[in-house]
Amino acid sequence: MSYKSNPIANKISCVMYGINSKILLDNTKIKELLLEALKQENFKILGQIEHEFRPQGYTLVVLLAESHAAIHTYPEYNSLVFHIYGCKGEGDGRKTFEFLKEKLEPKKIDFHEKEFILKPNM
Amino acid sequence: MSYKSNPIANKISCVMYGINSKILLDNTKIKELLLEALKQENFKILGQIEHEFRPQGYTLVVLLAESHAAIHTYPEYNSLVFHIYGCKGEGDGRKTFEFLKEKLEPKKIDFHEKEFILKPNM
Repeated sequence: MSYKSNPIANKISCVMYGINSKILLDNTKIKELLLEALKQENFKILGQIEHEFRPQGYTLVVLLAESHAAIHTYPEYNSLVFHIYGCKGEGDGRKTFEFLKEKLEPKKIDFHEKEFILKPNM
Repeated sequence: MSYKSNPIANKISCVMYGINSKILLDNTKIKELLLEALKQENFKILGQIEHEFRPQGYTLVVLLAESHAAIHTYPEYNSLVFHIYGCKGEGDGRKTFEFLKEKLEPKKIDFHEKEFILKPNM
């Protein structure tokens, strides 16, 4: 029981607005982009789960050795929500976010980032 | 294609510190608590994926009709990270958080909440 994970984790959450409908309605493409983005940042994918909503909307959640990432699409609003929580350390998830931003070309982004300290200071 | 989801989503992320090791090392119990917490708030569970790390640590991600929830345990720090993103509207996830808090009895919590507007204002 001597293993200790990195005591710093990072969370990125954002809404990407104004994404082209052609991409936003293509769930296979969205999945391909997220998996590729995660590989770019050397996240280890342990599993994934997805759901295609009717008439539209898609959720993909990926379980990582370093935590999890998720995408939820809202084609009715031309927007998409992306979350990544990684515990490799400071700034985790930024490369994944940047890759998605480049590929999805949103017109506007509402971006939030928060560091988490896992080690208690009590 | 006339369906529109609620344009307001809510994200809660927190670190719960100082949780009793007996609970924190019991992955079955942790899973049971999260699923029960989600039911308390009437979230619809569509699927789940989990991973037990060696020698310790557990990740559970639940795919919801209203988005997703996740727990990552860090027994080496006596802490746990909980995330929930829900798109039923304002304050989504609070009941789930409160239920977990009551059952896990953490000594300290680092709590973050953020509302997301899915409808673009461009």
